[in-house]
Amino acid sequence: MPRHRILGIDPGTNILGFAILEIDGNSLNLVHMGVVKMGHFNEQAEKLRTIYEHTSAQIEMYQPESLAIEAPFYGKNIQSMLKLGRAQGVAMAAAISHGLSITEYSPKKIKQSITGNGNASKEQVAAMLKTIISKEVDDSYLDATDALATAVCHHFQMTSLFGNTGKAKDWKKFLADNPERKWRP
Amino acid sequence: MPRHRILGIDPGTNILGFAILEIDGNSLNLVHMGVVKMGHFNEQAEKLRTIYEHTSAQIEMYQPESLAIEAPFYGKNIQSMLKLGRAQGVAMAAAISHGLSITEYSPKKIKQSITGNGNASKEQVAAMLKTIISKEVDDSYLDATDALATAVCHHFQMTSLFGNTGKAKDWKKFLADNPERKWRP
Repeated sequence: MPRHRILGIDPGTNILGFAILEIDGNSLNLVHMGVVKMGHFNEQAEKLRTIYEHTSAQIEMYQPESLAIEAPFYGKNIQSMLKLGRAQGVAMAAAISHGLSITEYSPKKIKQSITGNGNASKEQVAAMLKTIISKEVDDSYLDATDALATAVCHHFQMTSLFGNTGKAKDWKKFLADNPERKWRP
Repeated sequence: MPRHRILGIDPGTNILGFAILEIDGNSLNLVHMGVVKMGHFNEQAEKLRTIYEHTSAQIEMYQPESLAIEAPFYGKNIQSMLKLGRAQGVAMAAAISHGLSITEYSPKKIKQSITGNGNASKEQVAAMLKTIISKEVDDSYLDATDALATAVCHHFQMTSLFGNTGKAKDWKKFLADNPERKWRP
């Protein structure tokens, strides 16, 4: 498919990891990655506003055509799941309002896709990313490398479905014909 | 305070209730209320998109200055809390992106505020709303009356803090000085 960009995000309630991955032929280029820390905000409202505004700003600046989001489903209590759902919701709304497709991946799926092992550590994922991405990957923030891994996972999923020479037109047609793949691949 | 509007919403995963309440001196006027049904969508993505787009459209059409949201915290399982959090998150993002203040109220607080009884039934809340609002309230959709009740609750809270003749300037100043009231009154 032609050159395009994927925004990967890992939206937590206190830290938002994000990465912009550019796919250009066989090259996977890291455009930008980082984290936004929100632990200093006392109010959840401020955290949600920060996630929404930061995600919108990334989309407007880098013009990705899809959002890949790490979406854990288990292992949290009721109260923290509601907060996590809100954090995911505002990030998704930023994508919705800018017309991006949204695909979510479980942590296990992402690890499997990057390292071949669904139980790999964050450090193993970060190390493998350095061999995949044709630019130095700063692994000082593991939430950012998680976001990058999510974007790379999305690219691998799309490539396995359509091949690396697949046309974006076919891809979009596939997504239109198979809306469930867009959401729960 | 001068004439202003409050958007009340009750965002569920399968049905979104909403109401636009106009406060004009001592009059509480119902501008618009209704529900959006989403049970026919197979995909959560479509439901979230619908919540975001509908909430944005209501804000653009009716220009409320605040969002009051019914936000239950308990009694759901982990999976449904994540979905509920996402539904709330996209609705909040619509408010954030349009510059509205956001206040959330528990169901118990809303019932207490409208009927004096935190354990009142939905039907009792709807009946009381008919005596409060100076326009016929259609109670055929209880999710919409819940949304209206949330907006009325927000008005009562603001009035009890600032009085019915309070100036919007004071109100805004109070919210600026007391950001925690905006979120968890």
